[in-house]
Amino acid sequence: MMDVTPYSCKTKAELAREYEKELAHFEACKAKKLKLNMARGKPATAQLDLVSGLLTVLADPKDCYDGAIDARNYGELAGLPCARAYWADMLACRPEEVFVGGCSSLSLMYDVIARAYSHGLLHSPRPWCREEKVKFLCPSPGYDRHFTITASFGFELVPVAMTPEGPDMDQVESLVKDPSVKGIWCVPKYSNPDGFLYSDETVRRFAKLTPAAPDFTIMWDNAYCVHEFEGEYVPFLDLIALCREAGRPDMVIEFASTSKITFAGGGMSCIAASTDNIDYLMKLFSVQMISYDKVNQLRHVRYLKDKAHTIALMKRQAEIVRPKFHVVFDSLEREIDPLGFSHWNRPTGGYFISFYTLPGTAKRALALCKEAGVTMTGAGAAFPYGIDPEDSNIRIAPSLPPVKELEEAMEVFCTCVKLAALEKMLDPS
Amino acid sequence: MMDVTPYSCKTKAELAREYEKELAHFEACKAKKLKLNMARGKPATAQLDLVSGLLTVLADPKDCYDGAIDARNYGELAGLPCARAYWADMLACRPEEVFVGGCSSLSLMYDVIARAYSHGLLHSPRPWCREEKVKFLCPSPGYDRHFTITASFGFELVPVAMTPEGPDMDQVESLVKDPSVKGIWCVPKYSNPDGFLYSDETVRRFAKLTPAAPDFTIMWDNAYCVHEFEGEYVPFLDLIALCREAGRPDMVIEFASTSKITFAGGGMSCIAASTDNIDYLMKLFSVQMISYDKVNQLRHVRYLKDKAHTIALMKRQAEIVRPKFHVVFDSLEREIDPLGFSHWNRPTGGYFISFYTLPGTAKRALALCKEAGVTMTGAGAAFPYGIDPEDSNIRIAPSLPPVKELEEAMEVFCTCVKLAALEKMLDPS
Repeated sequence: MMDVTPYSCKTKAELAREYEKELAHFEACKAKKLKLNMARGKPATAQLDLVSGLLTVLADPKDCYDGAIDARNYGELAGLPCARAYWADMLACRPEEVFVGGCSSLSLMYDVIARAYSHGLLHSPRPWCREEKVKFLCPSPGYDRHFTITASFGFELVPVAMTPEGPDMDQVESLVKDPSVKGIWCVPKYSNPDGFLYSDETVRRFAKLTPAAPDFTIMWDNAYCVHEFEGEYVPFLDLIALCREAGRPDMVIEFASTSKITFAGGGMSCIAASTDNIDYLMKLFSVQMISYDKVNQLRHVRYLKDKAHTIALMKRQAEIVRPKFHVVFDSLEREIDPLGFSHWNRPTGGYFISFYTLPGTAKRALALCKEAGVTMTGAGAAFPYGIDPEDSNIRIAPSLPPVKELEEAMEVFCTCVKLAALEKMLDPS
Repeated sequence: MMDVTPYSCKTKAELAREYEKELAHFEACKAKKLKLNMARGKPATAQLDLVSGLLTVLADPKDCYDGAIDARNYGELAGLPCARAYWADMLACRPEEVFVGGCSSLSLMYDVIARAYSHGLLHSPRPWCREEKVKFLCPSPGYDRHFTITASFGFELVPVAMTPEGPDMDQVESLVKDPSVKGIWCVPKYSNPDGFLYSDETVRRFAKLTPAAPDFTIMWDNAYCVHEFEGEYVPFLDLIALCREAGRPDMVIEFASTSKITFAGGGMSCIAASTDNIDYLMKLFSVQMISYDKVNQLRHVRYLKDKAHTIALMKRQAEIVRPKFHVVFDSLEREIDPLGFSHWNRPTGGYFISFYTLPGTAKRALALCKEAGVTMTGAGAAFPYGIDPEDSNIRIAPSLPPVKELEEAMEVFCTCVKLAALEKMLDPS
């Protein structure tokens, strides 16, 4: 039977024996010369195969019209009316509050920040490149690509603590009193990487923020709006409506995409925001773009139909995704939890598991993983500037590998996490 | 028989009679309550219908791979290898010099200028937003959307004269001695709107430019690289290779797309440039984008195959486009040329005819057109800040309307042009 005594209850000699045992296991893993990847939230091939109907849903010229609009020709910068209606249904907002983009919501977020930098947003006194200093709030751990965008423009990234209810709103409410704080990154549903659902209370407090900066913007990345892999669809509040009701209608810009609904390399993205924000952004976007790929927009709307139909599809996706998460849950519960040096949240949607190992050992654990052929998201990636002050957080992305590979990868992972923790306990210097 | 005496040879009384005649004709046109549009270079429905095979060329998951790469998933920011090879063939450059984008080359141009503004280009001493002044050369008439991009960042637009051989290179060579001149907009094949082909001599002089600004960039928009509607395919020099040979390999960034080959609202675009430029741009683009729509890239490569096959397709497109240009040519030759107050170039490719009416009457002529239900590109649009110093140039875009509508539109157009000229001649104040 497995020894499940927490490390903290063991003597140094016992820990040393554990270390020898794990080291032997590590060497055995290494000898297998594995090449496994849990680095990125990439859909598995089986998920992509599930939506093949998307490829041929438009088969004929007569399929290419949304009413009188020919999706194949220039025009309709805001997106096809049917695509705007689709996203309004998905996000529980109004069609006129939707701007439909290309395949990437990340690029829409980048464009909003880049335009803020060069031209300013709707309520900006000046372009952000003319500001003395720009600070951006980064609930951490968070999505590395968000943080990288704001860092690339030289903004100061200000960490905000994450809680199971969402960002620490006391901190947020206090920080927005600084007029150089221009915005915050949020993933409100199945937060990346923790998989937390922002509580209604948190969302309502966002709507009631009174920031000093008139152009303070909540970058509301609703990346996992219908991405339950366990249980029923969880509804969410429409922050756009709440901000309108609270008298700051332009404070939030929401983003979403089908990257993890249809094709990660060819989905449909959108912005949702107040009509004044949409009008303002359209003026800027009209300089950079005649129109996004409306053929792909129409393809998606014809295939996905509406929110109810999309949620039904996501239930079938969940059948593929869920067993993979369960491999990770089971490994962690069996191999790591009893040892008492770590913690993690068990998400029911999204793409990640956020694992907190013994502080000061995350980097080392992942270096060991790499040595044994298992690639993970870099330690610290989920923190501003890639620096986890605790060196504890590890993001696990189980979606891509097949279950069998994932089991192998988790075996390596658990061994490396234990090994790094034991090294530290045996030699805490 | 029609009176074909040039207006300049007529007496005032004769001109007045002409005026009465044309005015009567104008009123008759107005009474028809037409609603015709020659404003934009939009492909006709028949052209879009011609490439319907594109819709279903990828029909099955197994079709979605370029070698081992699954086009449906994230990755390959520079584009699918087969798409890079396709564009290298099309543009006579090397695959490693190609970066494949989404549906819009305009947005790639915008992104290059926007990144120059916020981050600087490869050889920039500083981001352009930190420069005292940035000037951009605008061969005029040119493409209004080019000029709008650089104007939107507050750059000073410096007009350069266009000649049938391309931009006046004496002017260009002299202007680039100013270190605040950071670049130039070019449409080297079938220039927008004149339809001129830059001569080999002009292209070679571009490669040999020695600008004072180390980051001076030739924005080489090869929008009409295979867009002959008359005669055989006209080859062009590879400016990237010429710049490399001349010792300034990073001075040019080339752009192209299939917007007028397949779907204007869902094509495939690219950047071509030195590998150092591509590496540098990739570093910047990797912050804004995980990858462009590779499914659409693969769809295009499977459908278009290669340059030879694309040129064969363009010959079929030409069958649709050519008769429309001929309607315009014939109208102008019959109705306007004999009157001796205008001139225009007869292009053999591209999407436009650039018509130069009696100076001081272009705006008036287009206002009359509008009154009679015919929408044209705004007068002056082809000049920096939308101001044609001569008020003479009118861009005609004949591709969209069916031939019958085009004939009606040209009848109105010729009448309005004559009417505006006669007004001016009769009352030159």
